[in-house]
Amino acid sequence: MISEASALLARTPGTLDAWLRGLPDGWLVAHEGGDTWSPVDIVGHLIHGERTDWMPRVRRILEYGDSLAFEPFDRFAQFRESAGKSLPGLLDEFARLRAASLRELTALHLDDVALDRPGLHPSLGAVTLRQLLATWAAHDLDHVTQIARVMARQYSDEVGPWRAFLRVISGSPG
Amino acid sequence: MISEASALLARTPGTLDAWLRGLPDGWLVAHEGGDTWSPVDIVGHLIHGERTDWMPRVRRILEYGDSLAFEPFDRFAQFRESAGKSLPGLLDEFARLRAASLRELTALHLDDVALDRPGLHPSLGAVTLRQLLATWAAHDLDHVTQIARVMARQYSDEVGPWRAFLRVISGSPG
Repeated sequence: MISEASALLARTPGTLDAWLRGLPDGWLVAHEGGDTWSPVDIVGHLIHGERTDWMPRVRRILEYGDSLAFEPFDRFAQFRESAGKSLPGLLDEFARLRAASLRELTALHLDDVALDRPGLHPSLGAVTLRQLLATWAAHDLDHVTQIARVMARQYSDEVGPWRAFLRVISGSPG
Repeated sequence: MISEASALLARTPGTLDAWLRGLPDGWLVAHEGGDTWSPVDIVGHLIHGERTDWMPRVRRILEYGDSLAFEPFDRFAQFRESAGKSLPGLLDEFARLRAASLRELTALHLDDVALDRPGLHPSLGAVTLRQLLATWAAHDLDHVTQIARVMARQYSDEVGPWRAFLRVISGSPG
C-alpha cells in the first residue's frame, strides 16, 4: 500500500508543473468567488501541508501513538505564507518538499505493524498511520479536482449550451 | 480567448503524462463500478475526441455554419479503439494528435467574426465556434477531475474517518 500511495504522491508536483507553469495568469488566479481558492492558493496549501501536516503527523504517530493528538492543520496558512511568491517558485518549493517527505517516508521502512499504529486526530479522533498515508494521496487528488473545477468554471458562460454536458461546471452528479 | 484556451489545451497531454505514465496498474485500470471509466479509458476517450470531435467540428462550422449538424460524438468508441493498447502508447498518441489539432487551429487565424459563426449540435441545437473552443478546454478539465475522482475513490475505505474531509470521495458539495 505504501508503494502504491508513494507512486501517486511522487507524481503530483510534476503533474502540477506540467499543467500550471506558464499558463496565462487569468487561469492561475481565478477562483470560485468569495474566499474560495485559486490554483496558486492551492499550491500554497499543498506546500503548507508538506511542511506541517503529513510527515509531522507520521512522526507523531510513530513517537506518541494516540497519546498526543496531531496539531490542527491551518487551512488558511497559504494566504500568509505564499503572499508575494510567484507560481514557478511555489511549484519548485512543492517539488523539493515532496521529494524530501518521500525520502523520509521510504527510509522509515514501515511494516504492517507500524501502519496499524493508532494516532489521534484533533477533531476526527482515532485514526491509523495507514489511514493517514491513504488520506495524503487522496488529498492530493482532491486538490487536483479543485484546480480543474476552478479553471473550468471560468468558462461556465463561455461554453453556452454545452454546460449541461460538463459535470465539472454544472456540478450535476452521475 | 483562443490563446487562453489553447494554452490550457496544449498542457493536457503533458499533465496526463506526468501524472499517469508508470503508475502501478491498480490505479490505471480502476473505475467506479459498473460501466464507469478507468483512467486508461478516459485517455482513450480524449484520443477519440481529438480524431473525430473537436477540429472536425471547427471545420464543419467554418465550412457549413449551422446548415449541417455535427456528427454525434461516440462516447464509447474508446472501448473498441483502445482495446489492447498500452497506456504509454495512448499517452503518446494523445500528445501527437493534440499538437496537430492546435497547429491546425492556430493556422486558421480565427478572428471575432469567425468565433461568432454559428454551428448546429445534433442534440443541443444552436452553438457558436467560440462556445465549441471553450467546451474543448472545459472538457479536458472535466476528465482531469474524473481521473482524480476515480483514483481517489480507490481509497474510499482506506482513508477511514478522513473521508468526511475529502470532497473528492464523499462527493459532498461546498
